[in-house]
Amino acid sequence: MANTDSVKVRVLSLNCWGIRYLSKQCPQRYAMIGDMLCKEEHDIVLLQEVWSEKDYLSLKKRLACSHPHSHYFKSGVIGSGLAIFSIHRIHDTFLFRYSLNGYPYMAHHGDWFGGKAVGMAVLNIGSLTANVYVTHLHAEYCRDKDSYLPHRVVQAWELQQFIRHTSAGADMVILGGDLNMHPEDLGNRLLRSYTGLQDAYLETAKFDGCEDGMTLIADNPFINKKELCPFEKGIRIDYILFKGSTKTDIYCDYMSTTKGSIPNHPFPYSDHEALTAGLRLETHTLTQSDRQPKIQDSAAGKLAALVDIVTEARTEVKVGLHCAEGMRYTATRTGVMGLALLVLELAIAAVPWLALGTEQPFPRTSFYLLAALCFAILLTTFLLYIFYTMELKALQGAEDQMRLAVGSLQEKLRGFPLAQPHNAPRRPPEGHEPSALAPEE
Amino acid sequence: MANTDSVKVRVLSLNCWGIRYLSKQCPQRYAMIGDMLCKEEHDIVLLQEVWSEKDYLSLKKRLACSHPHSHYFKSGVIGSGLAIFSIHRIHDTFLFRYSLNGYPYMAHHGDWFGGKAVGMAVLNIGSLTANVYVTHLHAEYCRDKDSYLPHRVVQAWELQQFIRHTSAGADMVILGGDLNMHPEDLGNRLLRSYTGLQDAYLETAKFDGCEDGMTLIADNPFINKKELCPFEKGIRIDYILFKGSTKTDIYCDYMSTTKGSIPNHPFPYSDHEALTAGLRLETHTLTQSDRQPKIQDSAAGKLAALVDIVTEARTEVKVGLHCAEGMRYTATRTGVMGLALLVLELAIAAVPWLALGTEQPFPRTSFYLLAALCFAILLTTFLLYIFYTMELKALQGAEDQMRLAVGSLQEKLRGFPLAQPHNAPRRPPEGHEPSALAPEE
Repeated sequence: MANTDSVKVRVLSLNCWGIRYLSKQCPQRYAMIGDMLCKEEHDIVLLQEVWSEKDYLSLKKRLACSHPHSHYFKSGVIGSGLAIFSIHRIHDTFLFRYSLNGYPYMAHHGDWFGGKAVGMAVLNIGSLTANVYVTHLHAEYCRDKDSYLPHRVVQAWELQQFIRHTSAGADMVILGGDLNMHPEDLGNRLLRSYTGLQDAYLETAKFDGCEDGMTLIADNPFINKKELCPFEKGIRIDYILFKGSTKTDIYCDYMSTTKGSIPNHPFPYSDHEALTAGLRLETHTLTQSDRQPKIQDSAAGKLAALVDIVTEARTEVKVGLHCAEGMRYTATRTGVMGLALLVLELAIAAVPWLALGTEQPFPRTSFYLLAALCFAILLTTFLLYIFYTMELKALQGAEDQMRLAVGSLQEKLRGFPLAQPHNAPRRPPEGHEPSALAPEE
Repeated sequence: MANTDSVKVRVLSLNCWGIRYLSKQCPQRYAMIGDMLCKEEHDIVLLQEVWSEKDYLSLKKRLACSHPHSHYFKSGVIGSGLAIFSIHRIHDTFLFRYSLNGYPYMAHHGDWFGGKAVGMAVLNIGSLTANVYVTHLHAEYCRDKDSYLPHRVVQAWELQQFIRHTSAGADMVILGGDLNMHPEDLGNRLLRSYTGLQDAYLETAKFDGCEDGMTLIADNPFINKKELCPFEKGIRIDYILFKGSTKTDIYCDYMSTTKGSIPNHPFPYSDHEALTAGLRLETHTLTQSDRQPKIQDSAAGKLAALVDIVTEARTEVKVGLHCAEGMRYTATRTGVMGLALLVLELAIAAVPWLALGTEQPFPRTSFYLLAALCFAILLTTFLLYIFYTMELKALQGAEDQMRLAVGSLQEKLRGFPLAQPHNAPRRPPEGHEPSALAPEE
């Protein structure tokens, strides 16, 4: 193996918390962010929650000199909020909208309207191709009773599928974003172990930032400390992940996060901390013998671990399926009751009408009010029925794909001479060391 | 270049027209399709419009021996209708839902409820990896005044993006499906020229089937001849497309279609004709000199043609944007009128209420009816507003990506010593020979 080339790439990821008129000090913070990006000149800047296109356009104007290439990913009602700025030319972009993303009637959570997605940009860095991904998964509003967990697990599943299938031709894969998952959460394990992506915080040679790499911290003045409970100091939910290819090795030389305040500024950039990673890419001329044995060594163990994780994800999706079925059943039942009420009302009103000449005993006002109520129930439950059916289809689809994936992984596992017996990989996943899943780029 | 291996793959694609209780002779036709597939033993079977999962499951049962591997792609309210059966093991599947797909209130067209998508399955055929895609684009209900054209163009755009980005690791790419586009329609040119996919009908060594490869023909008893007008004999809208890779060359040895009737059966399999293609894959050991000059030769011309096609697609998407903006404006205006009416009504009712003791002159029944009408208008226009905003975002997103793609293509074009001047590729696309776009696998 002969190293022939070394390329350095500085990446920033930041959730900008850019809800116009609602987020605190929004215009001032965008101005600060613009100044910082212009000065720091990161190679790649991955932003989330840039909800307003106007804010993106003003950032684009501000960064015209430092980052001439950029893309804003549009999706949903409001937009995906995802933006990418780059020093290197963006050759191609692609957007994948997650099939599940909360509920439209949970308007105060707003995730559904955002049309959450993963955006991809293909960049040429020197002679190398980099696939850069930016995403923002569904928020976790209550960790103890997280009704959005199946949705987030399906998003993580689709994210790993998207990255895995679109990155075959890339020399370098970088994912930045607010995953709304703790480091060892199911979705995160699924994503990392299936794609082989490495966590910059875990891999970095040097680190300067918040304790445990936290990105949502109690010391940030925009944070409501009560909402962090029981994680008093904070949580790590924003990530920069990366991997190389068979042609390249990639290393994280340093990583840093902001620490809740910015020197000489009255407030921080956002309620999330900004992440910066310094990556180094080493190109090597690959000989067949270089890589083959290295992969073989731990492949069986990794596959077995992956089978466990996917099985765990399937269980979570099944829980979601069960809930969605329940909700659809409730909607159906309410709709049927609305219909029955309407029929009953019409029957009562029809009796005196059939017995000609009899005075109508049903007060007109009540009649119309009741009818309007019935129609409102019917319409609402019909819309809910359609929505829950779509949710069910998406969950079932993910579950089918996971089942197929488990089968295929087990098939591969059987091919290994040292593999454990068929049913062994199905042991409970608690026993795993996360390091067993770590890829070996 | 030394040929080392040859693999043969037989592919079938069929739009099954499987709307339970509505499509004519649906159960009988499914039985016929099952018998035929079981007997013919195609390597890969790509089905569209299998709207009911029950029908998929009964087919799966019927084909358990001949096609042990299968997948049904779930999406939308009803389902995507896409299914794949395979003799070879399916290792992985992935579904991409198109961002645009008609309008939910056009319920009689039904496309929105189908949740149109492209399904991908990764198969191992011997030592080769095949990426197999199945899709069904939005129907064309009126060719002269096709209000769905921007939606279909965006679907074709997303289809080519999906195939291009997910097929980098594949030795063989096969796409089968009902594209609802004539051979030289914009979306079809976009798809073929961007991905380099070849049309089996145009490339086949032998052909046995309908005139001009038509797949929706007047001779099919399920076809309403009036709907085909002005194409009296029929149209070609179903396709099998394919390409190899740098490691493989692919050829179509033969192709056939059914011809509107099936010997010894009272009616055909569907209102569409079934397509069968015999593909042959030749693996070769690639030396750098093999491919490089061949690609260079016509690359500039192809790029210029591609710039034209993407520019044409952008124009079409802009037309769609203009329409969607108009629709959203109409919805907003109607909503504002509904609100004004409600305010006016409340004002009229409030006057005698404020002047205490005066008799209420507004008849109660009319009052409630009018109020209900206002609320209905407000709700409907609100939902339409949200829907059109999502349509706008999706169209704008596609337009942005196309603009970026054109820029990137023109940049590449400048790199060619023999390239035409900068503005030359923007000449009207009518002058192109389709053969200029044909890839050179």
